[in-house]
Amino acid sequence: MTAPDTTAVDPTAVDTSALRAVVDTSALRAVVDGRWATVREETRAQLAGQPGMRADPDFSSEAYRAHVTDALKLLTATGRAHSGFDPAVGGQGDVGGVVTAFAMLAYGDLSLLVKAGVQWGLFGGAVQVLGTERHHERYLRRIIDGELLGCFAMTESGHGSDVQHLHTTAVYDPATAEFVIDTPYPAARKEYIGNAARDGRMAVVFAQLVTGGVGHSADARSACASHGADARSACASHGVHAFLVPIRDADGNPAPGVTIGDDGRKAGLNGVDNGRLTFSGVRIPREDLLNRFADVAEDGTYSSSIDNETARFFTMLGTLVRGRISVAGGAGAAAEKALALAIRFGERRRQFANPATGEEIAVLDYLAHQRKLLPALATTYALHFTQDDLVARMHDIQAPGSGPVGAREQRTLEQSAAGIKAIATWHATATIQTCREACGGAGYLEENLLPALKADTDVFTTFEGDNTVLLQLLAKELLSDYGRTIKQGNPLKIAPLVGRQLAGVVAEHTGLSSLGRRLPGLRLDLTDRRRRRELLALRRADTLATAIRRLAPAMRSGNDEFAVFNASQDLLLVAARAHVDCLVEESFAAKLETVTDPGVRELLEKVYDLHVLSTIDRERAWYLETGRLTAAESRSIRPLVNGLCAELRPYAGTLVDGFGIPDTWLACPMLDDDAWAPAPGAPAAGVLEEVTTG
Amino acid sequence: MTAPDTTAVDPTAVDTSALRAVVDTSALRAVVDGRWATVREETRAQLAGQPGMRADPDFSSEAYRAHVTDALKLLTATGRAHSGFDPAVGGQGDVGGVVTAFAMLAYGDLSLLVKAGVQWGLFGGAVQVLGTERHHERYLRRIIDGELLGCFAMTESGHGSDVQHLHTTAVYDPATAEFVIDTPYPAARKEYIGNAARDGRMAVVFAQLVTGGVGHSADARSACASHGADARSACASHGVHAFLVPIRDADGNPAPGVTIGDDGRKAGLNGVDNGRLTFSGVRIPREDLLNRFADVAEDGTYSSSIDNETARFFTMLGTLVRGRISVAGGAGAAAEKALALAIRFGERRRQFANPATGEEIAVLDYLAHQRKLLPALATTYALHFTQDDLVARMHDIQAPGSGPVGAREQRTLEQSAAGIKAIATWHATATIQTCREACGGAGYLEENLLPALKADTDVFTTFEGDNTVLLQLLAKELLSDYGRTIKQGNPLKIAPLVGRQLAGVVAEHTGLSSLGRRLPGLRLDLTDRRRRRELLALRRADTLATAIRRLAPAMRSGNDEFAVFNASQDLLLVAARAHVDCLVEESFAAKLETVTDPGVRELLEKVYDLHVLSTIDRERAWYLETGRLTAAESRSIRPLVNGLCAELRPYAGTLVDGFGIPDTWLACPMLDDDAWAPAPGAPAAGVLEEVTTG
Repeated sequence: MTAPDTTAVDPTAVDTSALRAVVDTSALRAVVDGRWATVREETRAQLAGQPGMRADPDFSSEAYRAHVTDALKLLTATGRAHSGFDPAVGGQGDVGGVVTAFAMLAYGDLSLLVKAGVQWGLFGGAVQVLGTERHHERYLRRIIDGELLGCFAMTESGHGSDVQHLHTTAVYDPATAEFVIDTPYPAARKEYIGNAARDGRMAVVFAQLVTGGVGHSADARSACASHGADARSACASHGVHAFLVPIRDADGNPAPGVTIGDDGRKAGLNGVDNGRLTFSGVRIPREDLLNRFADVAEDGTYSSSIDNETARFFTMLGTLVRGRISVAGGAGAAAEKALALAIRFGERRRQFANPATGEEIAVLDYLAHQRKLLPALATTYALHFTQDDLVARMHDIQAPGSGPVGAREQRTLEQSAAGIKAIATWHATATIQTCREACGGAGYLEENLLPALKADTDVFTTFEGDNTVLLQLLAKELLSDYGRTIKQGNPLKIAPLVGRQLAGVVAEHTGLSSLGRRLPGLRLDLTDRRRRRELLALRRADTLATAIRRLAPAMRSGNDEFAVFNASQDLLLVAARAHVDCLVEESFAAKLETVTDPGVRELLEKVYDLHVLSTIDRERAWYLETGRLTAAESRSIRPLVNGLCAELRPYAGTLVDGFGIPDTWLACPMLDDDAWAPAPGAPAAGVLEEVTTG
Repeated sequence: MTAPDTTAVDPTAVDTSALRAVVDTSALRAVVDGRWATVREETRAQLAGQPGMRADPDFSSEAYRAHVTDALKLLTATGRAHSGFDPAVGGQGDVGGVVTAFAMLAYGDLSLLVKAGVQWGLFGGAVQVLGTERHHERYLRRIIDGELLGCFAMTESGHGSDVQHLHTTAVYDPATAEFVIDTPYPAARKEYIGNAARDGRMAVVFAQLVTGGVGHSADARSACASHGADARSACASHGVHAFLVPIRDADGNPAPGVTIGDDGRKAGLNGVDNGRLTFSGVRIPREDLLNRFADVAEDGTYSSSIDNETARFFTMLGTLVRGRISVAGGAGAAAEKALALAIRFGERRRQFANPATGEEIAVLDYLAHQRKLLPALATTYALHFTQDDLVARMHDIQAPGSGPVGAREQRTLEQSAAGIKAIATWHATATIQTCREACGGAGYLEENLLPALKADTDVFTTFEGDNTVLLQLLAKELLSDYGRTIKQGNPLKIAPLVGRQLAGVVAEHTGLSSLGRRLPGLRLDLTDRRRRRELLALRRADTLATAIRRLAPAMRSGNDEFAVFNASQDLLLVAARAHVDCLVEESFAAKLETVTDPGVRELLEKVYDLHVLSTIDRERAWYLETGRLTAAESRSIRPLVNGLCAELRPYAGTLVDGFGIPDTWLACPMLDDDAWAPAPGAPAAGVLEEVTTG
């Protein structure tokens, strides 16, 4: 790669095809593909061979659901679904590979991605990790083969985020050795459940496990479940557990006691049959409790390897981290596809003539257009590498043959997954929106693929954990970690450290080098990569310190806990965001170290620079308010970002080629070169003179 | 209204229904309804009586289009469509009223809004304002009555924003006294044309008018059209004009020479039949040139009351400003509906228990939730009043009996319309997205109305002028105005004024008071309303001065015009945005002056404060970089915004009630109080201890 001469950039003179040749695209692809390159290549070949899986955008919900159920069968035939399961049940234990392949389904049809995620990730995954041998033998092979389609019934219409306190009950009846499943009131129905409205035969149902409650009224059982194990009554609640519950018979009719509703048309993902499940006295055998972490003996005696109810619940949830990581991956792939569409369109579409030449200017040559798309592309690259790191960490913990998992390692993985899922899905939503707008009217037509990307991924920001709640969870974990560091259980009850002292402790805890911490007034040259990195680390440390400083004294003085928490909720979210910004930067920086091809490395370094500078740019008010940047330093960001946009513009096409999205999934009328045949005569008009609209 | 005690806000103790009574809702409604209150009441009654017009979200495009065409007929029966046309053609000349009523259709079905806008606003509007008596007599009554459905065929697939240089040709043939309409190449086809795919019988087609071109090849005619009137050839081009072209016969078959394509499924607005029109040698009588501003005599002699081709074109376009204002109004109403849904949901939906009480907390009581919705609500109020001002200004210029319109008055209206359309539609897109996310999974279901709002309004940011292009247009106009002020034709060719001198001239030009300008270092107390207002005005003046300072010297030194323009494109957009921020603030402040009810006034003052503070908050990096705010002042914004959110939270329901959206159009399952029947027993858990997800 030859660095363009930025002193005299004439973007209209750029011959895009020639420049693409300067960077070795296959070397770039290899870097992008990373550890699961083979899986990616196989998945690409499979996707490329299935253009018939593309849904008709005018499908009714019924037709689209049938189409996706058929596509799921085609997917079963590829064997990919098997590969993520344990070898003991016929799989290959390739946890990282299956998540990587899953995310790539976003290049095709996102309804299929979600349907597959429900069937094998959530339903099958829950049976594997929460169940034991008896469940694996009886159900898992049929789940993998797609013979038994099922649901993951956790969310209730009244309890989405606060799943520990969901209200469905499973009361054990020792007389028959059965659990009785009930929905105690309307807002406790299971809601938004994939596979429920049409295809599911069975559901993993999350419910409050109650023993000793038979003979009580449904209301009393529910009250018992709500008040937890401490309730002084004949019955005892043991918290949320997972149960296998048949919801339909072999003919597809609802099972006795099960009422099934249909969520109907949604903003997107209409190939997935989301529905509602209400249970009334549904009886299942004792053995259909998924009993890896807890069990109920025939006489009703409850036992668990984990004594603390909350700890048990989080252990169960933790095994399901794969779903959250998969959603982040799907969001990333969707953003990649949107950028590939918008950047290719921006290279082709011309608007207004250059007064010097009379030639119309490609819209991607406009600075405003570059600033919409290129920083988003840089961050998409950054998140791609971050996601790969996350998948690798999960694989190394979960794959068969991994050593024992430390609690700290598992917790850190969960924290990262929560934060990255939130940031990656918000990034996808914003980026796809920007890409739609960048394609104007063409971007609004379904034939050009952007509308489905937008509509289908929109729910990613609120499912598998609402993003705001996830960042709050991460912030709380960061506070706890900090508390552990300073040898106190609860960070809110520590003696208040003030000012620099606290910031110093946090900085040390977060691994900030001494330079940035000790010399906050030092002039930071924003062209220096190390300094920029330290700016991100400083922000991580400072925002966490600020949150602690606000919360700790207020908590100690006996104030109302909710009021104290609520007054600082925005600070907590800022601290979580700053933490994730560092994770993303670290993954990208580590990736750069591994790149050997000099052209690819030079290119990716510029992408990295643009990503990091854009992050600092987004938060520059904070840097100014805290004195971490001077006004002059802050003002220097804009020309740096603009310069990087100009430098990267000729490589924008190469960069989206780097994702390796099969051409069959990008083909659309707005990218058909025949549609852009030149005009017989091009009008000449000055940009400033002739800015008109209509 | 009694101001809540902010020192000890306990939002969970708020009894929303009681607080709503404190503010006189009908007095609030009267303020919100403004000048066209009667029209609003009539339209509400009509909408409330038509709940059957609600579309089935699972409609095929075909069924939805038929549904909307039927709904258009119902709308015709209300007589509202007539009212905007001139009394001479059977209307009432109530320009402001019809635009107000039109925008309110966004409370119902946006496909109907757009279909009505195409038929009466664009198609009928063009016939009225660009045509003359012969067109009015022959067509207008049938257009108003919905007997003649038609299209507004301006945009081409290769020329959306640069409409002055569109490529469709209309060549006059004196032998038959006809115009011959041609689409010279694929990207010159008319694209995204409403009413084209199914219902339209006629189109107002914008094309390059060529005389003396018969006998030339199509290519030669096109080349002539492209090169303008200066081309030395037998034919002469006179620029873009509008023609009435039949596109279908009475049986609905395409007219000879007209090829009609279907844009197919779109991201939204699928009740509107958008399509593509390609013309090949289509002949229309000479009389079907819409000849208000220019005509062609039978012998082919061209004449116009406006000599300059560009001036003529912009005069024609200027008469169509109503479309842009209507889109801004529709976007505003859509944002209002989204907020009404999300805020009512936020009052009902509870998540996590307050550890002090064991009661679950309404999600709108969380600070993070308030910060998502309440500043957006405040800005929606601000834009509502801004829109009303814009409509009133247009009415006073366009309504029958208005005096002669000054060029300056017309230009200022067009500038405001361009800027406000851009800001209002982006605000709607962002706000509806936020509302969708704030309702979680419920917000993703079509039954809860948010998905259609999002999908249908999404194109508003790029149609009737792409927002980025509109802001650029506004910025260019601001530069021109500035140039005129200092008695120079071209602001880029003026002697460069530097530093304070230039800022001073701009400040004076933009009406900034001396205080803010002369004392930039003065401590600005952000609780002071006048000072905040000056901060906005300062930004308007400074950003324009910066753009001029960058552009002027570069232009004078003989650099490439496009390169110079492009290097400052981001600064131009910033200046335009800052200008619109002032327009919005001014409208809201002026409105406050008219409010007599003390409770309503106190409430709206807080809404105003939150809007203005949020605007400054959004741009605080700029204020810090320019030294207009100190770090401490900037840091003071966050607690002020949070405090206003807490103060306004109890009135959030009242404020959305103020919009007066008919309940039939807000009714949806997620707001059904039966669905939120309380749990038999509520679990108690600390917010910080139990933040869990799933």
